[in-house]
Amino acid sequence: CVTEFPNSDGQKGPLIDHAEGQRFLNDTFKVIMEEVLSKGADVKEKVCEWRDPAELRRLLDLELLEDGQPHDHLLQQVKEMVKYSVKTNHPRFYNQLRFLTEALNTSQYTYEVAPVFVLMEDVVLSKLRSLVGWSDGDGIFCPGGSVSNIYAMNLARYRAFPQVKLKGLWSVPRLAVFTSEEGHYSICKAASMQGIGLENVFLGAVPFLVSATSGTTIHGAFDPLDLIADICEKYGLWMLLGGGGSVLFSKKHRHLMKGIERADSMTWNPHKMLLTGLQCSAFLLKDTTDLLKHCHCANVTYLFQKDKFYDVSFDTGDKSIQCGHKVDCLKLWLMWKAVGTRGLEERVDKAFFYTRYLVQEMKKKEGFQLVTEPQFMNVCFWFIPPSLRGKQNSDYYQERLSKVAPAIKERMVRQGSMMIGYQPQAGRVNFFPMIVHSPQISEQDVHFLLNEIERLGGDL
Amino acid sequence: CVTEFPNSDGQKGPLIDHAEGQRFLNDTFKVIMEEVLSKGADVKEKVCEWRDPAELRRLLDLELLEDGQPHDHLLQQVKEMVKYSVKTNHPRFYNQLRFLTEALNTSQYTYEVAPVFVLMEDVVLSKLRSLVGWSDGDGIFCPGGSVSNIYAMNLARYRAFPQVKLKGLWSVPRLAVFTSEEGHYSICKAASMQGIGLENVFLGAVPFLVSATSGTTIHGAFDPLDLIADICEKYGLWMLLGGGGSVLFSKKHRHLMKGIERADSMTWNPHKMLLTGLQCSAFLLKDTTDLLKHCHCANVTYLFQKDKFYDVSFDTGDKSIQCGHKVDCLKLWLMWKAVGTRGLEERVDKAFFYTRYLVQEMKKKEGFQLVTEPQFMNVCFWFIPPSLRGKQNSDYYQERLSKVAPAIKERMVRQGSMMIGYQPQAGRVNFFPMIVHSPQISEQDVHFLLNEIERLGGDL
Repeated sequence: CVTEFPNSDGQKGPLIDHAEGQRFLNDTFKVIMEEVLSKGADVKEKVCEWRDPAELRRLLDLELLEDGQPHDHLLQQVKEMVKYSVKTNHPRFYNQLRFLTEALNTSQYTYEVAPVFVLMEDVVLSKLRSLVGWSDGDGIFCPGGSVSNIYAMNLARYRAFPQVKLKGLWSVPRLAVFTSEEGHYSICKAASMQGIGLENVFLGAVPFLVSATSGTTIHGAFDPLDLIADICEKYGLWMLLGGGGSVLFSKKHRHLMKGIERADSMTWNPHKMLLTGLQCSAFLLKDTTDLLKHCHCANVTYLFQKDKFYDVSFDTGDKSIQCGHKVDCLKLWLMWKAVGTRGLEERVDKAFFYTRYLVQEMKKKEGFQLVTEPQFMNVCFWFIPPSLRGKQNSDYYQERLSKVAPAIKERMVRQGSMMIGYQPQAGRVNFFPMIVHSPQISEQDVHFLLNEIERLGGDL
Repeated sequence: CVTEFPNSDGQKGPLIDHAEGQRFLNDTFKVIMEEVLSKGADVKEKVCEWRDPAELRRLLDLELLEDGQPHDHLLQQVKEMVKYSVKTNHPRFYNQLRFLTEALNTSQYTYEVAPVFVLMEDVVLSKLRSLVGWSDGDGIFCPGGSVSNIYAMNLARYRAFPQVKLKGLWSVPRLAVFTSEEGHYSICKAASMQGIGLENVFLGAVPFLVSATSGTTIHGAFDPLDLIADICEKYGLWMLLGGGGSVLFSKKHRHLMKGIERADSMTWNPHKMLLTGLQCSAFLLKDTTDLLKHCHCANVTYLFQKDKFYDVSFDTGDKSIQCGHKVDCLKLWLMWKAVGTRGLEERVDKAFFYTRYLVQEMKKKEGFQLVTEPQFMNVCFWFIPPSLRGKQNSDYYQERLSKVAPAIKERMVRQGSMMIGYQPQAGRVNFFPMIVHSPQISEQDVHFLLNEIERLGGDL
């Protein structure tokens, strides 16, 4: 069998031509620098070069073939790919340090495979916890906020009914989860995945978890944390808090989350407001009984041997639902180290400032109507085109207004000038739920936004 | 409120100095190229510069401060970090294209936010499915194989008992999952998280899922897929297949997975054998009834509006348990495009070849003893130091042999020469479970491995 192999020269061959590979990698970095980071961050460039699915499939050479492609062709493909992708970059260079995470390509589960990152994650989680107000506790970086919420629900159930881990839900009474109507949908996804069932979110039976939100997805509303904590403490319920973490950097605005230190867990996404780069999401908990480990451990012998020559409490992999997790802590650590706690606070304050500024400018204009007065970075509003102004009482008003946001959105995407969503909600017809979470925004951007909506929707 | 803000100059200030940022990013790329990619791939460099947790914490300046750090200091930190991290790189340049994934920083959930990647994922998943033998089906890229397995278990349960999504597990009989003793531990983690309970993995009650494995973690064993499929078909059970996906590229070796096309789902990790870079993990399924969507959808109105101006079947986000997922398909797509299907096949064949070669060379040497004859890339073996050779029948043999692998491992990590795990299993004392999944390995590497173990353990 050994001698059959056609090409056993090991270190040679087209797979690993060092000089050629190096040249190619340099070329790719150049494309990343020029096309993705510089052009992508240039406000004069389109947000997106829109193409319909069928047309885009024709334009891109996506097919995978028997034979490999020459470098020049591949680089051309890379440029095309960048051209038709939505530009998500901002001229923020610190968050580009996340390339390091990719370069190191480390999976984090034992100290010996990721010594630096086990320690780093510990530092970052502990700093985040201290912003929450917990002097001790636990935590882990997750592949996104939804997964952090799944963790919280799993731990809450485990704390209330540890037998579920072995015997399943049949061994306990029907459970219930409480959240607000504006709570994040990941709570429902978690309830269905965890066998609790969607109908047991909000309903009776034995409650074990209350999901509170700081900065709801659409309106940016803050739940009254102290009131919720009072109830959770009284009945021994797990208080899960999702969202708003970055507000804690701001001395001026953190009162919005008063009572947060009374929560049991916190789902915090630095990849949102701090723009650390996807993904960077922390799950924090106040617990000091090693619940994260007891609840998730599978005691895998080939990774977590007890007879190692160092303190195996640094082998943190079995706390996760996977085993290894990406070293996402590096992204936040580098940004934090680079700009300091003060720099992060400034960013948050700036985002609040520009939200207020947007609202102030919006109120000066005819044709913009707020859905609610913003507490956070969310500004929900309708654009009322001239043809509908003063017609609030007509039969056709709501019906025609509901078509305005989708029409403006279509023009905006086709022209590539901006990217804002729209949606109906709770009896309200389609409105724009705008979020100002980029500290990058300027006064000019605010005016551009308002003028552009007037331009796109003026004739509707 | 607006006028209070101390520094509202928007596009200026230390956060976004363009030229300075560009210089810093260039410097960082240089570190990535030189320290991480070139040195990291140099076999003459240590795998790891070992430090105890306490010492490493002293060596690194991990603390996060109020103020930001100057660039030079930060770059120095980056170099230190690289120095003490385990080197996971290989001189394989195509997989460095994954930097693009980071640069584009796109989350994939609707066509309008990720047009290129929605189409690309579709192409990649469809190519993978065709290697499985499914002409149609569905799939999604996941944050790792454990999460893919969680998906499979959730879908299997949903197909068998759709009421679980709404009413929870109390509405159905006690469920059971079957797997082999060597099956991956993620099945247990999933069973506990999904409320099925660990005791219902393997046990009686109503079976709904059989978890089959191709290439078990330790021994690289292949379950008899056709036999398992016969039983699953007869009783209507979901057949989950995990592992071994890359073997399907090899015409010579894919017979090991005969019957695979009869599985219901497949968990495939190109970030393992194909080294695409973490993370790149596909969940594939044969189902054509949109189960992935029905099972996971939360019908989030602010992302998945039905009144959009294009075909919303391209908005695939609600199929996931998060919402957006990273554009991990790009990593595999670029590598595949670059080397072609033939190039991938060559890599797989090469890994098989060197596994056989390692075993052949091992057998020529005194002191190496195989645990089992390898089927796949896994070579499990004991090193018997000269002091124990021929002593198999002594009372102390097993006890002393059990201490050999940990002792060699400690020396290996402290000297930074290699990185292999060890473990006891099923009454067998500590052995080395070696996996030859790098197509990078050469004959010299094989000899180095054997000689190094002899050198490290010769005096034990």
